[in-house]
Amino acid sequence: MSMLKGMRVVEGSAFVAVPLAGMTLAQMGAEVIRFDRIGGGLDSGRWPLAPSGKSLFWAGMNKGKKSIAVDMKSPEGRELISRIITAPGDDAGLFLTNLRVRGWMDYETLVQDRPDLVMVTLTGDRHGRPQVDYTVNPALGIPDITGPEGHEDPVANALPAWDLIAGNLCVSSLLAAERHRLRHGVGQDVELSLKDVAAATLGHLGMIGDAVVNDAPRQKSGNALYGAYGQDFLCADGQRVMVIGLTDRQWRGLVQATDLQEAVTALEAQTGQSLRDEGVRWQLRHQITSLLEPWFTARHVADFAETFDSAGLTWSVFRTIKEAVAEDPDLSEDNPMFKMLSQPGLGTFPVPGLPTQFSASERALPVRAPILGEHTEEILAEVAGLDGTEIAGLFDLGVVQDPSFANSRSAA
Amino acid sequence: MSMLKGMRVVEGSAFVAVPLAGMTLAQMGAEVIRFDRIGGGLDSGRWPLAPSGKSLFWAGMNKGKKSIAVDMKSPEGRELISRIITAPGDDAGLFLTNLRVRGWMDYETLVQDRPDLVMVTLTGDRHGRPQVDYTVNPALGIPDITGPEGHEDPVANALPAWDLIAGNLCVSSLLAAERHRLRHGVGQDVELSLKDVAAATLGHLGMIGDAVVNDAPRQKSGNALYGAYGQDFLCADGQRVMVIGLTDRQWRGLVQATDLQEAVTALEAQTGQSLRDEGVRWQLRHQITSLLEPWFTARHVADFAETFDSAGLTWSVFRTIKEAVAEDPDLSEDNPMFKMLSQPGLGTFPVPGLPTQFSASERALPVRAPILGEHTEEILAEVAGLDGTEIAGLFDLGVVQDPSFANSRSAA
Repeated sequence: MSMLKGMRVVEGSAFVAVPLAGMTLAQMGAEVIRFDRIGGGLDSGRWPLAPSGKSLFWAGMNKGKKSIAVDMKSPEGRELISRIITAPGDDAGLFLTNLRVRGWMDYETLVQDRPDLVMVTLTGDRHGRPQVDYTVNPALGIPDITGPEGHEDPVANALPAWDLIAGNLCVSSLLAAERHRLRHGVGQDVELSLKDVAAATLGHLGMIGDAVVNDAPRQKSGNALYGAYGQDFLCADGQRVMVIGLTDRQWRGLVQATDLQEAVTALEAQTGQSLRDEGVRWQLRHQITSLLEPWFTARHVADFAETFDSAGLTWSVFRTIKEAVAEDPDLSEDNPMFKMLSQPGLGTFPVPGLPTQFSASERALPVRAPILGEHTEEILAEVAGLDGTEIAGLFDLGVVQDPSFANSRSAA
Repeated sequence: MSMLKGMRVVEGSAFVAVPLAGMTLAQMGAEVIRFDRIGGGLDSGRWPLAPSGKSLFWAGMNKGKKSIAVDMKSPEGRELISRIITAPGDDAGLFLTNLRVRGWMDYETLVQDRPDLVMVTLTGDRHGRPQVDYTVNPALGIPDITGPEGHEDPVANALPAWDLIAGNLCVSSLLAAERHRLRHGVGQDVELSLKDVAAATLGHLGMIGDAVVNDAPRQKSGNALYGAYGQDFLCADGQRVMVIGLTDRQWRGLVQATDLQEAVTALEAQTGQSLRDEGVRWQLRHQITSLLEPWFTARHVADFAETFDSAGLTWSVFRTIKEAVAEDPDLSEDNPMFKMLSQPGLGTFPVPGLPTQFSASERALPVRAPILGEHTEEILAEVAGLDGTEIAGLFDLGVVQDPSFANSRSAA
């Protein structure tokens, strides 16, 4: 039995963080209902797209959820959403959102219909101002320390790292609040902001302390591993590899596998410092790299891959995403986390399930994202508790969207 | 009352992901006991360091935990660790680790002492090979799409994003397994790997589908927001800003605030495409940027900051980390998440608590990291259930480390 079986979460969201949170809960076994406006939410066309024009992003972020599309401008639509969010059930009454809707959809209003509601709201910043990953990151200085040494301009993350971290914290915050409700019977309003998640992380990593107590600012250091040794090298076959000497064991293994012992001893004698100290490896990284460079330049990856693996070194090749998908078994069905799925309008490719393997349950296979409005009737009947006549009336009024409309629209 | 009050988690860890997981649980109110070897774990000297040589990183990642240092090479030390991990308590028997120790510290052995143990293990990859953030990232292709357009070399993340995501997933995986135990009385072995977390995330973001179904590979795009419009501009005062036109509302707001309506209409007429379509904004981003550039080049940030804010635009300035810490109230005690703490050997700076605010409890203030071994006696007495004579014996044998030794060492 999957971990969260029986739990029902309602999600009103767009983009990365909160959709990822809902999807993670769905992949842990919860029933997750995502509601959208008629025609789809703000992220319904988010890139990357398939050749059909359908969003690969949306399909990736909403796997295994149930979908209902509702006209939230109408009083009937708003009433319906409130009813779904506050529907009865011991393991229901859990609402995840990053839509800031004051009035009918805020905690104060919804809690009147379900006093033990747990509502988790992710905002841009603590002031309620809009912020996205692409603005939080430069505001806190990460682009300033990203990129090649000496490069003048800031370099942004290609990965929406803060969104991904915040989404995961939404999951654990919801689970913590639900645990509290199980034990004490009380729901609550749970709030966090994307910028606070990033600001806290800077502190956790020691970067705030570093900025305050050290004069020298942290600077760009290219692909070097910060604070110890780790560097990329171009090999004779044109491939690039990353090698790591973070721990003492990794460092000694690297030195041994590249026959560098004598050169290292000479460098230590010359500088009067011990490379067993990770900070010395960091300070002398350019010298170390000069020693290692000829070794890698003279070799193909195939010449040392087996030796490195059997010596337990921590290393990897650099790939493009296309190469990784084509070559790396960890991104294929060889990895039980992945399943080839054929998805309407998207094509067939490996789709990931939950990275976590729980021994008390079978590994759950990934389930494709819904078509917009796909579960409308089911949700209206089973969650909102409406009868057939009421449901037909809502369709007739256009308060909910007929999934065949979504089908025809997305195929257009 | 904080969310996880009464829960006890034992952590055997190093570096980013699992220490972050334990710290997050501690900041949610759990009692988290981190054990280390005598002298400190692999991350005890991780950079950044304070001028004293003490690790700001370690202090950041272990806030609010209890610490015990044990000689794990001795049978007595191993017995002690097992006893702490499997100690009785309804809300105990939760073990988080990224140390792969076969035999005395694996699930199969520990579960014999506590059948309902929940053990969460983070590995490098699913094969059990060592991997770190710095190797997983290039293997999956993110550095290939990071950096300025046209830049040839891969650019690594300065932020250990995968570690941070994996650590958060360790938290929710532990909470999900603990919820399952509360309801069904069974513990379990919970495993995930850093590389699987990264591989799954690539899939969630649509990048795997993109690599399979589209011919054109995703490429570097500098600081542009992928798939819609968002770009950085250098202003007349030398400051750089990021502006976002991801949603239709953001785009229209940006066009209006920069008086760009006529130019946009002309560009649409010239290309025969509508910039209301986010994908068109992405494809025509260079043309849009050319239109916006003179506007920003001619202005100081102070000239438009208030207008942008009152129009609700999504934007920010670029800062260095030092500038952010010095200037941004969100990184100071103005933000209730932060508290100025004076920490021995480190100095005084703002320290973050949990980003999440639970309405059912007061915001918990951050608690500094322990000194290595600081809670040895308390843990031996209250968790391991030893009496004074037994505890004295362990100190005498050197099985546990006297915290005064840690103090004198760290002050050296």
